[in-house]
Amino acid sequence: MEEIKIFSPATVANVACGFDVLGFCLDSVGDEMVIRKTPKKGIFITHIEGFNLPYEAEKNVAGVSALAMYNAIDVDFGFEIEIYKCIKPGSGIGSSAASAVGSVFCMNEILGRPFNKTQLTEFAIKGEALASKCEHADNLAPALFGGFTLVKSVAPLNILKIPSPDDLFASIIHPQIEIKTADARAVLPKEVSLTDAITQWSNLGSLVHGLHTSNYDVIKDSLHDVIVEPHRSNLIPHYQSVKSEVLMAGALGACISGSGPSIFALSKSIETAKSVADAMNKVYTATEYNFDIHISKINTEGIKIIEQH
Amino acid sequence: MEEIKIFSPATVANVACGFDVLGFCLDSVGDEMVIRKTPKKGIFITHIEGFNLPYEAEKNVAGVSALAMYNAIDVDFGFEIEIYKCIKPGSGIGSSAASAVGSVFCMNEILGRPFNKTQLTEFAIKGEALASKCEHADNLAPALFGGFTLVKSVAPLNILKIPSPDDLFASIIHPQIEIKTADARAVLPKEVSLTDAITQWSNLGSLVHGLHTSNYDVIKDSLHDVIVEPHRSNLIPHYQSVKSEVLMAGALGACISGSGPSIFALSKSIETAKSVADAMNKVYTATEYNFDIHISKINTEGIKIIEQH
Repeated sequence: MEEIKIFSPATVANVACGFDVLGFCLDSVGDEMVIRKTPKKGIFITHIEGFNLPYEAEKNVAGVSALAMYNAIDVDFGFEIEIYKCIKPGSGIGSSAASAVGSVFCMNEILGRPFNKTQLTEFAIKGEALASKCEHADNLAPALFGGFTLVKSVAPLNILKIPSPDDLFASIIHPQIEIKTADARAVLPKEVSLTDAITQWSNLGSLVHGLHTSNYDVIKDSLHDVIVEPHRSNLIPHYQSVKSEVLMAGALGACISGSGPSIFALSKSIETAKSVADAMNKVYTATEYNFDIHISKINTEGIKIIEQH
Repeated sequence: MEEIKIFSPATVANVACGFDVLGFCLDSVGDEMVIRKTPKKGIFITHIEGFNLPYEAEKNVAGVSALAMYNAIDVDFGFEIEIYKCIKPGSGIGSSAASAVGSVFCMNEILGRPFNKTQLTEFAIKGEALASKCEHADNLAPALFGGFTLVKSVAPLNILKIPSPDDLFASIIHPQIEIKTADARAVLPKEVSLTDAITQWSNLGSLVHGLHTSNYDVIKDSLHDVIVEPHRSNLIPHYQSVKSEVLMAGALGACISGSGPSIFALSKSIETAKSVADAMNKVYTATEYNFDIHISKINTEGIKIIEQH
């Protein structure tokens, strides 16, 4: 294989009760990337469309993860990377993660899969760290593994793939405001009450159970965040209106996607997910903010090949 | 049915990462109780063996839960209760819970099962509260439902039964020391670091996943408690020695059972559970403390009928 074109999906991290550990993968939103072998050794970003991102590999998320893998192998050729970016940077649905996993997934395919997905995540973490200033895998894992993932630990990296029911759909609104990573971090409490912590792990335990058993009542009952949402939701205009309207429209639950500003909701069917998206649309149409809305089934496959030759 | 004899099992609450929500049911340790209809209206404790407990129904755990149910029904007869207590009060393996569920389970059988298990737990909570001064269900739920249970919430009561692998066995040591409930409570932190809380819910999420998938590696990797064990383990003499020895003997994990002083370990086979029990025995034989040791498979059935007529 000389060249490969892939779809690298957007992802939702935290998922209400699973702050810092849980994530899921989207199907209808993602970047495309083309990677090909080139005789010259090294990593070269040759084309970027969609957003203005740096071409120097060591300053580009996809480039940094590619370099992390490239430095771990010994080959007499290099890789050219083309990035067709659709996920807006800073939207809170794993834009940097899609870039970070895209390059290493492609290189691994071209090389004949010397690395497993956990090892690919290790390389991708280096790219993610460039964007988010810390090594975390809660968007990388669902992008690579698909479906719902629980990042049990980062060092050593331990990723568990959680099954999920077939009829689970996500609706996502991205209000086009900027939340600075520093602000999203600053509002996090360093200490939480034991009572709240118990509520949170009770919810996460039951969400994992609900996903395993395809029990939508249990999923609905678990999609709550008593730890982070009370703080970060204040950074997102009209958050409470969106939340109350999507629940009225039939969503199982809704919360902040990653560190925001996107808000996700989960629903039992595509029809409900559309009604939920309509409710999101209605709230934000009445405001001064621009926004995007996505509807997606849970992508159980994760990142995938579009073309190869 | 006029009379019923049952086995009411001991239980392990908290299960390392599941403080206040998770529990599992034992098979080889438990009380026996006999309950029969009597023409005189009311709840009458007519016989207690094993330990010195009050005969007045309103001062006895089994009596209080029985009265809670009795006050919710309208019958022209009463119930006599005989208690054959094997689980030592204060041992940390659900002694009061076994009493609390035993009476209401029996009455429900005699009455033709008007109540479901969640409703029985509601009555039993009243008895448990007499013993532990607070309404909690983390021992009641596994005793009634069997296997592993997650008490998702107490008000409203929501209990989830988590499946578990067939070859999972518990070893338990009960060092005969008294830990006052007030002391066990006093050492609990009111606030915990967000970092520790994340570790704990990551472990609980992965334990639920490991139980669902019968993945012993995941179960082993999840049986950690970074929140409560560091504080309460200091109340149990030789705790660290027991823990390190049972892990050396092959246990998947070990932690405090309930609020102690019992220490439980989980193992993949009966053989390993026996080696683990031997390791427990060895540590405590070298001390001045008396102790009991139990080995049990996970009791997936919960409380059960021995005789009825």
